[in-house]
Amino acid sequence: MTRVVFTPSSRSTDAARGTQLLEAARGAGVDIDAPCGGEGVCGRCIVRVTAGRTNADSLGILPQQAVDEGYVLACRTTVLDSELTVDVPELAGRTGGKFIEDGDDSWPDDSQPLVEQSKIDPLVRTMLLHVPEPQLEDGLSDLERLSRVLRKENGIEEPEYPLPVVRTLADALRNDNGAVSVTLMPSRGSCAVIDVRPGDRPPSTYGVAVDVGTTTVAVQLVCLETARAVATRTDYNGQIACGLDVISRIHYARDPVRREELRIRVLGTINNLIRKVARRCDLPPEEITGAVIAGNTTMMHLLLGLDPEHIRLAPYTPTLLEASRYTAGEVGIHIHAQSRLFFCPGVGSYVGGDITAGLLCAGLTGDSGSVSLFMDIGTNGELVVGNRDFLLTCACSAGPAFEGGGIGQGMRAAAGAIERVEIDPETGSAKCWTIGDTRPVGICGSGMISLLAGLYRTGWIDPAGKFRRERQSPAIAIDGRRGTYMVVPGGEDGTEAAISVSEADIENIMRAKAAVYSAIGLLLTHAGIGIGEIDRVYIAGGFGRFLNLEDAITIGLIPDLPRSRFSYLGNSSLAGASKSLVSREYRERMSKLARSMTYVELNTNPAYMDQYTSALFLPHTDSTLFPTVKTAPVVHRQ
Amino acid sequence: MTRVVFTPSSRSTDAARGTQLLEAARGAGVDIDAPCGGEGVCGRCIVRVTAGRTNADSLGILPQQAVDEGYVLACRTTVLDSELTVDVPELAGRTGGKFIEDGDDSWPDDSQPLVEQSKIDPLVRTMLLHVPEPQLEDGLSDLERLSRVLRKENGIEEPEYPLPVVRTLADALRNDNGAVSVTLMPSRGSCAVIDVRPGDRPPSTYGVAVDVGTTTVAVQLVCLETARAVATRTDYNGQIACGLDVISRIHYARDPVRREELRIRVLGTINNLIRKVARRCDLPPEEITGAVIAGNTTMMHLLLGLDPEHIRLAPYTPTLLEASRYTAGEVGIHIHAQSRLFFCPGVGSYVGGDITAGLLCAGLTGDSGSVSLFMDIGTNGELVVGNRDFLLTCACSAGPAFEGGGIGQGMRAAAGAIERVEIDPETGSAKCWTIGDTRPVGICGSGMISLLAGLYRTGWIDPAGKFRRERQSPAIAIDGRRGTYMVVPGGEDGTEAAISVSEADIENIMRAKAAVYSAIGLLLTHAGIGIGEIDRVYIAGGFGRFLNLEDAITIGLIPDLPRSRFSYLGNSSLAGASKSLVSREYRERMSKLARSMTYVELNTNPAYMDQYTSALFLPHTDSTLFPTVKTAPVVHRQ
Repeated sequence: MTRVVFTPSSRSTDAARGTQLLEAARGAGVDIDAPCGGEGVCGRCIVRVTAGRTNADSLGILPQQAVDEGYVLACRTTVLDSELTVDVPELAGRTGGKFIEDGDDSWPDDSQPLVEQSKIDPLVRTMLLHVPEPQLEDGLSDLERLSRVLRKENGIEEPEYPLPVVRTLADALRNDNGAVSVTLMPSRGSCAVIDVRPGDRPPSTYGVAVDVGTTTVAVQLVCLETARAVATRTDYNGQIACGLDVISRIHYARDPVRREELRIRVLGTINNLIRKVARRCDLPPEEITGAVIAGNTTMMHLLLGLDPEHIRLAPYTPTLLEASRYTAGEVGIHIHAQSRLFFCPGVGSYVGGDITAGLLCAGLTGDSGSVSLFMDIGTNGELVVGNRDFLLTCACSAGPAFEGGGIGQGMRAAAGAIERVEIDPETGSAKCWTIGDTRPVGICGSGMISLLAGLYRTGWIDPAGKFRRERQSPAIAIDGRRGTYMVVPGGEDGTEAAISVSEADIENIMRAKAAVYSAIGLLLTHAGIGIGEIDRVYIAGGFGRFLNLEDAITIGLIPDLPRSRFSYLGNSSLAGASKSLVSREYRERMSKLARSMTYVELNTNPAYMDQYTSALFLPHTDSTLFPTVKTAPVVHRQ
Repeated sequence: MTRVVFTPSSRSTDAARGTQLLEAARGAGVDIDAPCGGEGVCGRCIVRVTAGRTNADSLGILPQQAVDEGYVLACRTTVLDSELTVDVPELAGRTGGKFIEDGDDSWPDDSQPLVEQSKIDPLVRTMLLHVPEPQLEDGLSDLERLSRVLRKENGIEEPEYPLPVVRTLADALRNDNGAVSVTLMPSRGSCAVIDVRPGDRPPSTYGVAVDVGTTTVAVQLVCLETARAVATRTDYNGQIACGLDVISRIHYARDPVRREELRIRVLGTINNLIRKVARRCDLPPEEITGAVIAGNTTMMHLLLGLDPEHIRLAPYTPTLLEASRYTAGEVGIHIHAQSRLFFCPGVGSYVGGDITAGLLCAGLTGDSGSVSLFMDIGTNGELVVGNRDFLLTCACSAGPAFEGGGIGQGMRAAAGAIERVEIDPETGSAKCWTIGDTRPVGICGSGMISLLAGLYRTGWIDPAGKFRRERQSPAIAIDGRRGTYMVVPGGEDGTEAAISVSEADIENIMRAKAAVYSAIGLLLTHAGIGIGEIDRVYIAGGFGRFLNLEDAITIGLIPDLPRSRFSYLGNSSLAGASKSLVSREYRERMSKLARSMTYVELNTNPAYMDQYTSALFLPHTDSTLFPTVKTAPVVHRQ
């Protein structure tokens, strides 16, 4: 038996030679995520052996540098005879069994193409060509013969041939008498040859749209000829074990080794999802030859292995906002290694390509003169206001409250999360609905908003978010200056834990909503228009999906406008990326969009703090902004 | 002790755990080359462990694929407890101690620039720039700020930024207040950024010219600003252990694993030479940012990992003759990984970039209307005839005779090789000169030519290359139909081995010279001009360096023209590559040259066989072609 010590918890266990590290961790009571079930594909169970020798097989998932640094996959590493010290990254985001995988795993609607038939012009195309046999007389090389056909028949001048393609060319041109299918990605006037294969390859070319969110990653497989989405999978970003929001990720990334760890983690998540969507369609992942990636600027930096530090430091300058067409191989995305990645261009350090991609799905970018507001709310809120003549954008830091962070019994929107609450006006007690209709285990962001709205409407809390001391409810306990609301009482036999929300929790939600609303206010001030002039509001993002409009307006998170002006977009970043995969017009519009937006920096704007302070009330200091929001009259009981 | 068996020789030894494989091989009497002295840098001692386990450290020289196939560096591998079988590639080209390294290791003449001052326009240039600090207002990313400066101040549009450059950009732009030195390689209207470093880097930019010959590899380090060559090193191509000429290399390369071995071997030679020239100038190899590579078409294929098989098979079609600007990193050349390699373009499967590069050094490509002949003679002879109006080229297979191959006691032009012979007209005995003035150990190509010419001039052999049976010499032994000439008698005490040449050896040289001369004849016939119309003859290549003009004319290897018309070019391939490193005009002329040459295929030309048969005499069947060549009158002795 060999001693295995896990840091930083210092928990340890004795394990026999041959024991899997994942198993040893369980034995020591250390929680290591392995959503792929130990197949060594998701990369989530990465740990670092800081002392001792193991028998590790990183299966090619971990780059050599990481292996040299001692990183291993816990599921693919066994204990030898030497004592081990194993560092398990701090699992800030992990809350026991509340962590779920593949929360949104749906078959997309493939009855309609992603864009109109006439607009289909995919990122990558495969064409069948016939390359004449070599002739003694003309002395043309294989490459020259192929290039001639591409030029004469397809008008393609001087394409770029990657070395791995050239290495297989001689065979490809000879195995089927010169019949080849050539996969190409046009780029900057010329194009890159991605693959050359003998014979008539099955005519379908596939691409993936990848939405890299701070919290979740979504991948959609798209058939490029038919422009139809054929499979979608979603999972938590493997980086959340290293920090919940972009700022904590940037902090984590300050050490180059940990930066590399973050890169590997998000690649693990992406590649695992790609494997899954591909498997659904019986497609080897390396047959996927195109990819459009949308993510916020920090996610894009971490995925490319760039130091995100200056995103966090004034003047908040990213290394890049648009990426050259790097190959999947050099970035580490497990599709055809020669595929060129198209990154949706971003606008600034806190308004990334996910927003540009999302805007494509809203009417904002059309020819209309009417003003629209685009909102993507999460730990980071991104906002765009504009019409055909102007586009202003800004980002605000809402903090993790909307995703359950900083809330005593908060959790993400996963099974067991209270997502909706109804307050009895008389008794003040709550009726709850949970995601998955299971036993409640915590409360998520939309649950908190619902609770807050209910308590405000029924008059149990005042505009400052405090419990009205003059009313008594069995659900409310006041202990000196601290008030607590019992959302779910504990079971009498002690089997069920109580779930409660404190005034401090409420304050966190109010700060988050104030950050968002004041950012909207500031954008409108910049644009010189009033709230009422907003003709349409588009709510994007995973959080928007669970948001109850009335509740959100009641707490003053979003403007009190006629309800018909609101639209939910769902994961518009993924949708925009998918559209870009199949339409050149969309890709070009997106690039134009990114350049045409004016980024408004809030951090250094003194007017923002005024707006923020005014928004720290329910629904707002200026109640005329929220004409439809009412609270119950306060009845003083003796 | 553990048994180690070496194949294919089946020699074996018992070695203790921890014994170096190189040492074990010596113990077993198996010769493994390790010119770098076991530092693990030259890659020459590569062997393949086909059974048993070793402790191997491939030091990153061997690619993963090779390691997986069992390849190891013998100098970096130790014996463990298990029995080993180690395959040592057949050392066809190795002849005991005659193998020398760094035969030509000279300081180049750096008193003059490689090209005229006005023509200096190097492949790669480093410029000092000042990139303005990031501003909150403009929202420009690091990449955008750099691109703006490149566009505004240098007119460079949309340069290509490799991912590794982008990864260091944030630091580079901030470490010295925006002062950076940017190394760029212009390419196709735009350019590739190779490196961005903070501050004022030492202003010198270095490049290497690499001549990859079938037998030898030469590397010259060039300072790109001053256009001066600063160091040159030459070594045998590490591939010669796998076959002496291109055809045997192509045979060897039919197995993909062996093809990979050939790639590693030539890379080992090149990288070792680069390390040496760099060390001479105290320059870390990764500071070298440009490279021009010249080699025959087969060498270029093997270096790039391409299958050369179709070069050998009719209609002799190479995969490519010009290579895109692949990075040093992806090809495996150990200079700055992002450097782009410029391959001198070739004309056909048997007239490669080495010839195009060499032609640049001859007057052939100028504006002159006078006709020139360019000859590069080795195992493969390449010829070009032309003037400003036309250029015809062809290749002939001379076989290995000129490099000592196929000659009983032949060897390459290395220390101990007889390179010149004088024949006593009366006795027929020989007086010899060896390379390095050492004890003679064999005879090289130029020695054979000298011997043949001497024997013919003095009348000891007839035009058919046979010893005149009617003359007796103590040096000539006739055994039935086989005649043998004793060049060096053995020492009386047996300490010195005799060196002799047989009629069969002479026949091999005659076949080789006939192959070359008949190719010249055919080219001239194609061009419609007579031998006498050749105004200049340029003799290129390592073999040409040792060639005695009179001897070569006497045996009918080269045309009998006024001696003033001949010029020796030395290693014109290396010289042309070096010039191309520093002059865009040269690079462009070379590309134009490659396209303007007409390749004449000899293999399928019936007239070639007629010409060849006529050339199988000394000096030629048609003696009017060689007016100055005389043989001694035959004196019949009683």
